[in-house]
Amino acid sequence: MINVALFGFGRIGQMHAENLNKHKEIKLLYVYEKSKQLSFKAKKLYNCKLEKNYKKVFRDKKVDIIFISSPTNTHIKFIEEGVKNKKTIFCEKPLDLNIKKIIKTFKKIKKIKTKIQIGFNRRYDPGHYNIKKDLERNKIGKLEKIIITSRDPAPPPASYLKSSGGILRDMMIHDFDLCRFYLGKDKITEIHAFTSSFEKLYAKIKDHELAVVTMKSKKGVICVITNARHCSFGYDQRIELFGKSGMLISGNKKVDSTELFNSKQSSTQKPFLNFFIDRYADAYNLQLKELISLYKNKTKPRSSFEDGYMALKLANAAYKSLRLKKTIKL
Amino acid sequence: MINVALFGFGRIGQMHAENLNKHKEIKLLYVYEKSKQLSFKAKKLYNCKLEKNYKKVFRDKKVDIIFISSPTNTHIKFIEEGVKNKKTIFCEKPLDLNIKKIIKTFKKIKKIKTKIQIGFNRRYDPGHYNIKKDLERNKIGKLEKIIITSRDPAPPPASYLKSSGGILRDMMIHDFDLCRFYLGKDKITEIHAFTSSFEKLYAKIKDHELAVVTMKSKKGVICVITNARHCSFGYDQRIELFGKSGMLISGNKKVDSTELFNSKQSSTQKPFLNFFIDRYADAYNLQLKELISLYKNKTKPRSSFEDGYMALKLANAAYKSLRLKKTIKL
Amino acid sequence: MINVALFGFGRIGQMHAENLNKHKEIKLLYVYEKSKQLSFKAKKLYNCKLEKNYKKVFRDKKVDIIFISSPTNTHIKFIEEGVKNKKTIFCEKPLDLNIKKIIKTFKKIKKIKTKIQIGFNRRYDPGHYNIKKDLERNKIGKLEKIIITSRDPAPPPASYLKSSGGILRDMMIHDFDLCRFYLGKDKITEIHAFTSSFEKLYAKIKDHELAVVTMKSKKGVICVITNARHCSFGYDQRIELFGKSGMLISGNKKVDSTELFNSKQSSTQKPFLNFFIDRYADAYNLQLKELISLYKNKTKPRSSFEDGYMALKLANAAYKSLRLKKTIKL
Amino acid sequence: MINVALFGFGRIGQMHAENLNKHKEIKLLYVYEKSKQLSFKAKKLYNCKLEKNYKKVFRDKKVDIIFISSPTNTHIKFIEEGVKNKKTIFCEKPLDLNIKKIIKTFKKIKKIKTKIQIGFNRRYDPGHYNIKKDLERNKIGKLEKIIITSRDPAPPPASYLKSSGGILRDMMIHDFDLCRFYLGKDKITEIHAFTSSFEKLYAKIKDHELAVVTMKSKKGVICVITNARHCSFGYDQRIELFGKSGMLISGNKKVDSTELFNSKQSSTQKPFLNFFIDRYADAYNLQLKELISLYKNKTKPRSSFEDGYMALKLANAAYKSLRLKKTIKL
Repeated sequence: MINVALFGFGRIGQMHAENLNKHKEIKLLYVYEKSKQLSFKAKKLYNCKLEKNYKKVFRDKKVDIIFISSPTNTHIKFIEEGVKNKKTIFCEKPLDLNIKKIIKTFKKIKKIKTKIQIGFNRRYDPGHYNIKKDLERNKIGKLEKIIITSRDPAPPPASYLKSSGGILRDMMIHDFDLCRFYLGKDKITEIHAFTSSFEKLYAKIKDHELAVVTMKSKKGVICVITNARHCSFGYDQRIELFGKSGMLISGNKKVDSTELFNSKQSSTQKPFLNFFIDRYADAYNLQLKELISLYKNKTKPRSSFEDGYMALKLANAAYKSLRLKKTIKL
Repeated sequence: MINVALFGFGRIGQMHAENLNKHKEIKLLYVYEKSKQLSFKAKKLYNCKLEKNYKKVFRDKKVDIIFISSPTNTHIKFIEEGVKNKKTIFCEKPLDLNIKKIIKTFKKIKKIKTKIQIGFNRRYDPGHYNIKKDLERNKIGKLEKIIITSRDPAPPPASYLKSSGGILRDMMIHDFDLCRFYLGKDKITEIHAFTSSFEKLYAKIKDHELAVVTMKSKKGVICVITNARHCSFGYDQRIELFGKSGMLISGNKKVDSTELFNSKQSSTQKPFLNFFIDRYADAYNLQLKELISLYKNKTKPRSSFEDGYMALKLANAAYKSLRLKKTIKL
Repeated sequence: MINVALFGFGRIGQMHAENLNKHKEIKLLYVYEKSKQLSFKAKKLYNCKLEKNYKKVFRDKKVDIIFISSPTNTHIKFIEEGVKNKKTIFCEKPLDLNIKKIIKTFKKIKKIKTKIQIGFNRRYDPGHYNIKKDLERNKIGKLEKIIITSRDPAPPPASYLKSSGGILRDMMIHDFDLCRFYLGKDKITEIHAFTSSFEKLYAKIKDHELAVVTMKSKKGVICVITNARHCSFGYDQRIELFGKSGMLISGNKKVDSTELFNSKQSSTQKPFLNFFIDRYADAYNLQLKELISLYKNKTKPRSSFEDGYMALKLANAAYKSLRLKKTIKL
Repeated sequence: MINVALFGFGRIGQMHAENLNKHKEIKLLYVYEKSKQLSFKAKKLYNCKLEKNYKKVFRDKKVDIIFISSPTNTHIKFIEEGVKNKKTIFCEKPLDLNIKKIIKTFKKIKKIKTKIQIGFNRRYDPGHYNIKKDLERNKIGKLEKIIITSRDPAPPPASYLKSSGGILRDMMIHDFDLCRFYLGKDKITEIHAFTSSFEKLYAKIKDHELAVVTMKSKKGVICVITNARHCSFGYDQRIELFGKSGMLISGNKKVDSTELFNSKQSSTQKPFLNFFIDRYADAYNLQLKELISLYKNKTKPRSSFEDGYMALKLANAAYKSLRLKKTIKL
């Protein structure tokens, strides 16, 4: 059995706990969570240890994997402990909102060759990944454009939004990462952002409801990312790769494959799978599978610490474009 | 200019008149129609001649093409006159409800090599025709099954239904013909029919609301035809060819290519093109184009007198199966 | 923990074992399998008991559920033992090829009110089930037609085919059952069958490669079932319900939701999920969930012994139609 | 009969001539074309008058409609003549590449209330127009985003490209106009552009192969336009309207509605209708219908001179953004 210590038992932490618990090779040994109520819930559900001194968890030699889904501002602290204690680490995105802290940690990670996987779950989605493979198999020739649509069905609570780092760091970070995923060795050199809000809440908490970012790579690939904090018709997740000789689309997944025809409409399909837990269920499983393989063997994770760092860099540049109303060079 | 004499100015005759009139090479010289009111309408719209003695129309040497869309029981009479006067002929389906009359006329037509095209418009539909070509190009290997769905949006008036010859002769005749079209040289050897009615009207007029016919060919191809006199969601027209190495579908055409997504449903498309005039507009034009080419050159029509005869033979066999509750051998 | 004794560890038995083993509430206590090799495989994989005398398994009071996926001709024997020992029972389809044996057992089951679920997995498929619910919600008005397409990607081994009972009892049994599922209280009264074979093997083993069965219900609903033992483009599973005011389709599931566009084609999708283990993975899980609930509570299974009996009756009638070349009354 | 004088008999002029000639109410009286060869072609095809002195054409009182599809730099000249002679005018896009000339002419047009329609054919496309109507019918709530994809199957000849005014004025002008069409009374206030080229030709002629423009309206609607001068999979024409309570898409039209399934792929559809003549055939007809109605009655054209002016203004602002690498305020 592989012993896992899970840090953070909030909304996403609970999802991870369930996935970890389902896996036959994994024992959820510790859950570290500040909220008493949530800690007890974890213990009740998974019969795991609760330890108040997090350093003890790291020092426990039985712990093989550190699984970090705690609040963003604690990520680096836990990663550093993990690095020190030579654990295999999983960390949710974003790594941190402070890029300097990230750079500092990055140096240590490179030096010690820490096994660390970042929570860019979309890289593991079979559809999103298959178009990457089809791109590499030259199905559409040279890549010329990447167009990503990502809309959440409904915004998270205002309390979360306030400390989220903003739509570009919290939500679009996935899409910045996906652009880098599809670009491979090519690099993003220019970026521009527009945002907009219709609900008044967003002005109050200095966030935005909608965001569109355009970018250009060194080789000339143009990227378009369009985000929304709400989407009446579900969790809209689409990627379009436009190439010299074709186009690949990774589209939405629906509740089932039924259709209704009546006098007013035809081919009506069921709504989209509503949110990330359902939509990316396969992705989370494949990500976990890779984490276990990362623990056991010398492999490179599909989603690395550097990816976490680079995505935040792009998010920051996008905010700079917003502020200066300029195309920003990277 | 090619001079056309149109026989019958009812619902379908009027559609043909409009198509004929639009065509630059064609002059609609005569319209022969029993109803005074409709005759005057034709004259007003197309400034054509009205002639009470139909034989005079046939004897007029200026007339190049005889276009027959009059009531079914007059078809053979007009065809015979056309044959006698060496005209190029178009005739709507079904040829007649009396197969003996058809056989008699067929002999003359073969002897004199009359240029005659039958109104199986679906053979000319680009989609339906393209899957025939794809079949011949071996895209799905050897043909094993033909499945045709054909449903009218709403039944014709009861008055028409009474003299229509019944759903199998009036409506399914198109689908019998399409099966023969896709089978090519292979022949249908066995047939079975089921019918059903939910509206009381059909029992009264001795017709049926729904019909399903299954057939088997000499080579073992199984055909399934499913018809309905009503279809709440429009004019449902689908063909499926199942082969050893693939499947071809010719599907429905919709009002436009827009889609609506909302909280209850996704990818909702517009209704089907509602009825034959819209759905088969392209087919009617291509059929007319072939008729002109048939007039000018020595070509074989895609839809021949023999096809009209054979389709009726299948319809009659289907009725026999209904009556005897048996698989009928042909 | 609920203790399960699994009978039969062949292809389908192994799939069930894996599903049973994944379930947290279930302990796979016994596997009963004639083949030594397979028995050892079962023991190795699941650390279950192997017992040569099957009666001992039934008498073991720790055993809660009898799970039967052994060869068809042993089903009734094991069911009878289960009934005697008051176990909750799951049994794969078909119940038996001898309808008299089934009727005899049926009487006992009704008398003792045995908890028994039959393996008509398709009733549990979310898509197939959702259209049933939509039908009941009156989304398409009164039901008028049921059209089922079911094609296996490739035939089972000839050895299996020989003792399978034939395409209508082995494969179409699922579709007979689904027709009954959608018809609800309405009953099938007439049936007709056509079969065909292109590969020579089928004539040798007295089976058929393709089959089309049409049926009519008391209320006038027409059912069309079309089966094939092979399908180059995967496991084709489609249901179409045609009603007075609309149509519902439960369609195929594909490998992922990506599309490719290039100069030769557009909107090309990935192949279908290849076979029942993948295509009906959700269905098997939901079926198992119901079985557990059946064990725990007084519930009615969605798929009952009577359903197993009635489906075989239809299959037998279809064979009679084939033999006599007649519409068979039920 | 309505007499039309057509100016310009190039690629697009020839298409218009054919459409004009097909229309029963229209007589193609004059074709004015500088190339002798093309002039003769026009005369041969349509038996129209050829007149070297264009002013004579305008003075001819029999001429009802001036139809301008000559080179862009002659548009304003011909419009001015039309205004002077009180003709009803159609003019292709773009109006001119010099915005000052346009403004000057605009004043005259407003003063004299000239009947003039601009060739933004996409406003007349049934799909594109139906989503506008559905938006107005509140099918998706308040509009929040407009996303337009427009890609030509292949670039025009280099000779044309050189004098086209560039991708943003020549090609994206349609999409600027469509954004304004859907925005209604709302106005675009900010704009940003990225362009890119992979083929060397574009650098030479100072044009671009790909362009992405983002814009923001006064009310906060974000617009994204993505263009390409080439598209291996045909003429890609898609519009997506994202609203508070839903999304509308006007999608591509395909050669036919057939699908191919085989062992490698499923649901493969035929390619897109290849180019504007086919894709927008309906739009051209509806536009012409409106022009005739504009001639006969006091109506407002769906596409006005002001629309032509405003679209160019946006194109110019986009070029400014490119040059200054800034978000441009309007």
